Amino acid sequence: MSGLSNTPELISCTKSFGGWLKRYKHQSSNTGTEMIFAIYLPPQAQNASVPVLYWLSGLTCTDENFMQKAGAQRMAAELGMAIVCPDTSPRGTDYPEEHDNYDFGSGAGFYVNATEAPWSKSYRMYDYVVSELPELIEANFPVTDQRSISGHSMGGHGAIICALKNPGKYQSLSAFAPISNPINCPWGQKALGGYLGKDKEQWKAWDSCELIATAEEKLPLLVDQGQADDFMEEQLKPEALKAACEAAGYPLEQRIQPGYDHSYFFIASFIDDHLRHHAKALGLIK
Amino acid sequence: MSGLSNTPELISCTKSFGGWLKRYKHQSSNTGTEMIFAIYLPPQAQNASVPVLYWLSGLTCTDENFMQKAGAQRMAAELGMAIVCPDTSPRGTDYPEEHDNYDFGSGAGFYVNATEAPWSKSYRMYDYVVSELPELIEANFPVTDQRSISGHSMGGHGAIICALKNPGKYQSLSAFAPISNPINCPWGQKALGGYLGKDKEQWKAWDSCELIATAEEKLPLLVDQGQADDFMEEQLKPEALKAACEAAGYPLEQRIQPGYDHSYFFIASFIDDHLRHHAKALGLIK
Repeated sequence: MSGLSNTPELISCTKSFGGWLKRYKHQSSNTGTEMIFAIYLPPQAQNASVPVLYWLSGLTCTDENFMQKAGAQRMAAELGMAIVCPDTSPRGTDYPEEHDNYDFGSGAGFYVNATEAPWSKSYRMYDYVVSELPELIEANFPVTDQRSISGHSMGGHGAIICALKNPGKYQSLSAFAPISNPINCPWGQKALGGYLGKDKEQWKAWDSCELIATAEEKLPLLVDQGQADDFMEEQLKPEALKAACEAAGYPLEQRIQPGYDHSYFFIASFIDDHLRHHAKALGLIK
Repeated sequence: MSGLSNTPELISCTKSFGGWLKRYKHQSSNTGTEMIFAIYLPPQAQNASVPVLYWLSGLTCTDENFMQKAGAQRMAAELGMAIVCPDTSPRGTDYPEEHDNYDFGSGAGFYVNATEAPWSKSYRMYDYVVSELPELIEANFPVTDQRSISGHSMGGHGAIICALKNPGKYQSLSAFAPISNPINCPWGQKALGGYLGKDKEQWKAWDSCELIATAEEKLPLLVDQGQADDFMEEQLKPEALKAACEAAGYPLEQRIQPGYDHSYFFIASFIDDHLRHHAKALGLIK
């Protein structure tokens, strides 16, 4: 452990599939708040450094939902992959209406850097996830600098924009039911308008479909989308993602899964495929 | 579906690993209340009847904890096994102090038939789990009459006593961190005293160690126990279980798992072994 003031402080430590699920808190320079994250260290990390999958969760989630409900630790332990789950927003602040909506404010940081007051002071989840957290993880845990990123819904949006905006930073990318085109859906318009202001031109820098059109690096994108997902048409817009990828020649494997909804039961059903997708890019399997 | 008044009414239906997780409510003749249960039907149940694993949860749980956190559906779908999770107590009643303790009253039915007022009116979870629920399941779902039983903590106690008190009813038995000797631990003494009264002789009919001594049928018992489980020594008493099995010649495979605690992360880490244990007895695998 380093002596930096943002050194993570252990909250809990739980054995899982031969590895360890650990929760930490630390003072974030980006949010100005204490932030909690979870890291799953597979058994292999006891003897060697392992690559890391960053998982970004959806609206209302914390660092805990994925670790409790996705069942990912089993395959991560088999593959030798760490998983890091940040929270979905700053906590402990109390701006007007911050805690009144499930889709804006706390639990709904949307993985952007806010420019509008008062949010701009704390809601800098993009820089937190892309820069501060990996630096912290790589300075304090037995991990390599090989990174993958995935997420669900708001976190699927987050995973795609983080990868597209940072060529070379991640070895692989996937998403479950991502908010694919936030500038054109109610959740996205509410969040981007609130965090970034009324100028819709500014929103485009945080929209997967817009970023795909000009992507420098074309990491193959695996996306699972439940066909019975109540949010699919109005909020998630998999067709827009597909069209943007086709127009740009961006490699997309988009699987529309009949009968599946938006829940963690859907994620759990297909998480192994995503972990193997990342493990191949990380050189853990062929 | 039958036309009986206790016909289960669907609450929710979620696709999971190619099968369906369904929650139902029904009027229970044993508890006199509405009861909720969950059933996971694997993909095989679309074309044939499948055997059922009954899972009994621990203190404070409902039908939901195991289905959300144990990661059991993946292997159940592979094996072709249904899983049924009842609640851990009646709900909707309001007896004095019923909701004041995590270890007595609501969420803590202990799988006994209470004889003390006012509990005797509703707290009949033993008859509910052993008789009413299997009858309901077998009358309304594509399942066979082949049954297995398992559970965690209070539910591990429940699974063992249900099997031991009903020779021939279950094909197999296992438990995670069971309350093995409730007549000799604080949780058990509080619950049995409250539900059954002060006469400790009456408690013995609900104690695994006591029942093992005179067991007619000796179903091989697989038990996992985390060695870092905070409740092990005072409440769970695996040594008492081991001694009782040794004294009676009862077949016990008791695995003390180093580093594991009492959580669902522990259960998830070993649930596949338990499902295979049951699948062998149910004839699903060799």
